[in-house]
Amino acid sequence: MSTSCTPERHDAPRAGHAYRLAARQSPSQQTFVKVGDAMFGASRPVLIAGPCAVETRDQVLAAADAVRVAGAQLLRGGAFKPRTSPYSFQGLGEAGLQLLAEARARTGLPLVTEVLEPEQVPLVAAYADMLQVGARNMANFALLRRAGQSGLPVLLKRGMSATVEEWLMAAEYILAEGNPNVVLCERGIRSFDPLLRFTLDLNAVPLVRELSHLPIIVDPSHGTGRRSLVQTMAVAAIAAGAHGLMVEMHPDRRAALCDGDQSITPEQLAELARTAHAVSDALAPAALDLAAD
Amino acid sequence: MSTSCTPERHDAPRAGHAYRLAARQSPSQQTFVKVGDAMFGASRPVLIAGPCAVETRDQVLAAADAVRVAGAQLLRGGAFKPRTSPYSFQGLGEAGLQLLAEARARTGLPLVTEVLEPEQVPLVAAYADMLQVGARNMANFALLRRAGQSGLPVLLKRGMSATVEEWLMAAEYILAEGNPNVVLCERGIRSFDPLLRFTLDLNAVPLVRELSHLPIIVDPSHGTGRRSLVQTMAVAAIAAGAHGLMVEMHPDRRAALCDGDQSITPEQLAELARTAHAVSDALAPAALDLAAD
Amino acid sequence: MSTSCTPERHDAPRAGHAYRLAARQSPSQQTFVKVGDAMFGASRPVLIAGPCAVETRDQVLAAADAVRVAGAQLLRGGAFKPRTSPYSFQGLGEAGLQLLAEARARTGLPLVTEVLEPEQVPLVAAYADMLQVGARNMANFALLRRAGQSGLPVLLKRGMSATVEEWLMAAEYILAEGNPNVVLCERGIRSFDPLLRFTLDLNAVPLVRELSHLPIIVDPSHGTGRRSLVQTMAVAAIAAGAHGLMVEMHPDRRAALCDGDQSITPEQLAELARTAHAVSDALAPAALDLAAD
Amino acid sequence: MSTSCTPERHDAPRAGHAYRLAARQSPSQQTFVKVGDAMFGASRPVLIAGPCAVETRDQVLAAADAVRVAGAQLLRGGAFKPRTSPYSFQGLGEAGLQLLAEARARTGLPLVTEVLEPEQVPLVAAYADMLQVGARNMANFALLRRAGQSGLPVLLKRGMSATVEEWLMAAEYILAEGNPNVVLCERGIRSFDPLLRFTLDLNAVPLVRELSHLPIIVDPSHGTGRRSLVQTMAVAAIAAGAHGLMVEMHPDRRAALCDGDQSITPEQLAELARTAHAVSDALAPAALDLAAD
Repeated sequence: MSTSCTPERHDAPRAGHAYRLAARQSPSQQTFVKVGDAMFGASRPVLIAGPCAVETRDQVLAAADAVRVAGAQLLRGGAFKPRTSPYSFQGLGEAGLQLLAEARARTGLPLVTEVLEPEQVPLVAAYADMLQVGARNMANFALLRRAGQSGLPVLLKRGMSATVEEWLMAAEYILAEGNPNVVLCERGIRSFDPLLRFTLDLNAVPLVRELSHLPIIVDPSHGTGRRSLVQTMAVAAIAAGAHGLMVEMHPDRRAALCDGDQSITPEQLAELARTAHAVSDALAPAALDLAAD
Repeated sequence: MSTSCTPERHDAPRAGHAYRLAARQSPSQQTFVKVGDAMFGASRPVLIAGPCAVETRDQVLAAADAVRVAGAQLLRGGAFKPRTSPYSFQGLGEAGLQLLAEARARTGLPLVTEVLEPEQVPLVAAYADMLQVGARNMANFALLRRAGQSGLPVLLKRGMSATVEEWLMAAEYILAEGNPNVVLCERGIRSFDPLLRFTLDLNAVPLVRELSHLPIIVDPSHGTGRRSLVQTMAVAAIAAGAHGLMVEMHPDRRAALCDGDQSITPEQLAELARTAHAVSDALAPAALDLAAD
Repeated sequence: MSTSCTPERHDAPRAGHAYRLAARQSPSQQTFVKVGDAMFGASRPVLIAGPCAVETRDQVLAAADAVRVAGAQLLRGGAFKPRTSPYSFQGLGEAGLQLLAEARARTGLPLVTEVLEPEQVPLVAAYADMLQVGARNMANFALLRRAGQSGLPVLLKRGMSATVEEWLMAAEYILAEGNPNVVLCERGIRSFDPLLRFTLDLNAVPLVRELSHLPIIVDPSHGTGRRSLVQTMAVAAIAAGAHGLMVEMHPDRRAALCDGDQSITPEQLAELARTAHAVSDALAPAALDLAAD
Repeated sequence: MSTSCTPERHDAPRAGHAYRLAARQSPSQQTFVKVGDAMFGASRPVLIAGPCAVETRDQVLAAADAVRVAGAQLLRGGAFKPRTSPYSFQGLGEAGLQLLAEARARTGLPLVTEVLEPEQVPLVAAYADMLQVGARNMANFALLRRAGQSGLPVLLKRGMSATVEEWLMAAEYILAEGNPNVVLCERGIRSFDPLLRFTLDLNAVPLVRELSHLPIIVDPSHGTGRRSLVQTMAVAAIAAGAHGLMVEMHPDRRAALCDGDQSITPEQLAELARTAHAVSDALAPAALDLAAD
């Protein structure tokens, strides 16, 4: 009788092949990653905000001002964009990085921006304070290694159908290069409901915190693809234990060349920041209790 | 050139076939469902707790006492259990309903319990204060109609691969019988990560609140299948706007005949209740702001 | 170090709770289910065809004639329809069963038709030669038991997010009532591609044949929801080892009240039958070789 | 009343951003891709076989001999391996390419092997007759462009959660570099059944043939991860209209360093080739009829 035909999942870590450096060793272990004044892994959530893509000087400077006013600690913005179609806007490239640097000089906000290929790492690292590896590149192992070698902190997004353990394995590629500064970012998984672009998987937050000591943040903009859900899911992410948020904000979203449907306004960003901190504060003592569980 | 080959999704509502009674008509519309002292839809979250299955008199009375002490407002417990295997424990049947009624008499807690088939509705309705229609029966339309006709409030769980609009359509079957007292319950969807039994989909909470006026609660016990995630995801559900929670608690979970792996202890339930209310209180003014968005 | 955190899947069969009667006991074991002249489980594939729903006398008689001309062995047609919306056409009920019986009398084709609730089993069984339990009811255990008790052969469709082992467990509910005549039907699972209504999972065919001795057929109409794929996937299903096919055909599909988008024409049905048999014949010796593997 | 809340899917092609060069222009359009004696897109299916990874000289030469004896037309084997864990065997690198070249010299079989990063393209192109872009790199757009510029034919695997249209968009990146020689390869999608590593999606075959003129083949080894399903699903793929197959075969699978669980033996490969051709022959006239549909 065939009662035990379920095989071990092939992608599950096995003895000798599991994540090691990414694995939690003790209940209290926590990695902190410092970028500018922000500290990922601490009790106060870090807020990253900015437009999907750098489009013009006016846009990025206006966005940076709004990000600073809202109290966010890092500016995001893409200069190299991974686009499903080769005919879509692909980003401004190095000119975009220069605009981001100008925005940093003006606001004091450190920059996180995406790097798409191994050869680009030195160029992007010359401008950025933190490198972003996007969901489509979570298993681009050459890029992970090169990002690890850069010495910069790395924001590693979850692949859109990656299991949590595959994601931790991807982090392991960076850590194994001697770079301990990895921040994970949940950004939605593929699922079946046509009302959402992706299904933000908040279960990943407590799961990562149980299995790993790395900080984890959440991107509710890509994670839902639906502007009306961004604020609520951002707050829920904080309640789920996220160490921070990454949010798409556009000073004039109707003019956005990319992802305008999921961008929020500067005013909504400020409100989101207030609410996220209120929930974080309310949970501070509870978090201690939960940690002791 | 084939640029528009994406057909309309067949299950999406079309003109003349959409949910009507379940659809939100105005930004402020909210249905309230009263069961005992609990009010689903109000700002204070409702907490339902109890064992997966009624097993023994001692177990259900001990559970009911713990539920009351923790401040929960309804007692849950299954007398008729839908089990994947015909050889698993199927519940105590009417004897289980009698034990639940005894627990109600002792604690004053109203009862919510599952009904599995149309013919069972009168029997279960004779004991219960609220009928539960489970995930496996979300599209059991005869059961939905009969539950609607019972006049009792109905807790309608989401099918494990139902879209949000299919779920609202299932609610429409109950509402169309003249029964306005429907409470929706998100309980996890099927996905690919082997670390979780189901993937709790908190996106459904703001999505339901956007599309419908019906109250929505969340079951983090079935929704994750992993005890270590229950408390955190319960709190995140409240932050996502859930009107309540449904949690499996067992006074002696190692002895549980069903779902022991996801049941929490009485002490954890009390802590969960405290934290959920702290977050709810912190969000109360923000919720008003969000509603005005 | 956390290398073995993957828990046993909760829904996987465990010792004492697994499928027994549905489990393959030896490499050569094969159950045969006879309905009229058709034999499910034999080397010649069985073809079931007909409209989604019985709509009018003219429609069902024309459909039955076309089904017979195409060489199909059973007539399908729904008198009781499970519809996502309570406002959609719900079927003709017993009047529909009477029309199906008239079509049987005229063509000699045995009938398979869906039963939606336990109480309906005697009524439907009075007309049908084979009872269909649909995907939405795969875990409607009361219905499975009652269908088992009817003594009629049962066509059990896979739930749209059921694992293969959960499906075999559902078959076990019927078998445990002393009814050995169960035929499984793969009909598509929920997945993420918006071009398809469902994703027909042909992997289920060899998987069921490996784990069980029950016959398995495939429904490419519901399984894809896209007419242009029906013929090709029907033939692929036969190549995957399916013991038969269930196909929606409508004599005038533009007038169909239900699922017209996935119905094929009588001419296409005849072509599908020819091609399916050609592949089945080509594989006959190979199938013997594969069985001996 | 909220009947039209389903937004356009964001990743669906829109006017001006859709695949153009990959799109079918007429019912009879078909691209042929020639590699050695093999012609992808023709009526006779092309068989690619070989080990997952090049491990030793003896292994790769024995494998190549078996591939030739079985009648396959291309040798596959990985010298650069994308591995979930940084601690797993990563491939022999250029030494592996040299062993593959020796196997080609001995057997006359052209080589297809994977390239993992843009910078590797010239090195791999110096040895290979066809470049493989793997599932994890389907949206590695820099790699797609560089592979397109190489002038070599490209085998483009589907991402494990890519929609068919996203996959065609990835092909568009290669075609837009002036390289028309793209062959698509379905290799399984992420789904929920724990019995399978991936869910081979044969629906993609007729869907690609409907939307595009590019040849499409199927990899049932990675696509199921379960050796017992490989032969059957290979044959079903041919029946679904695949222009070829890619199969993992190891001369001594118990010694395999990678994917031994899904590799078949040389004898099984020969049997698979015989059966696939028998089905292809049986369908030849039917395919013409279907094409005329």
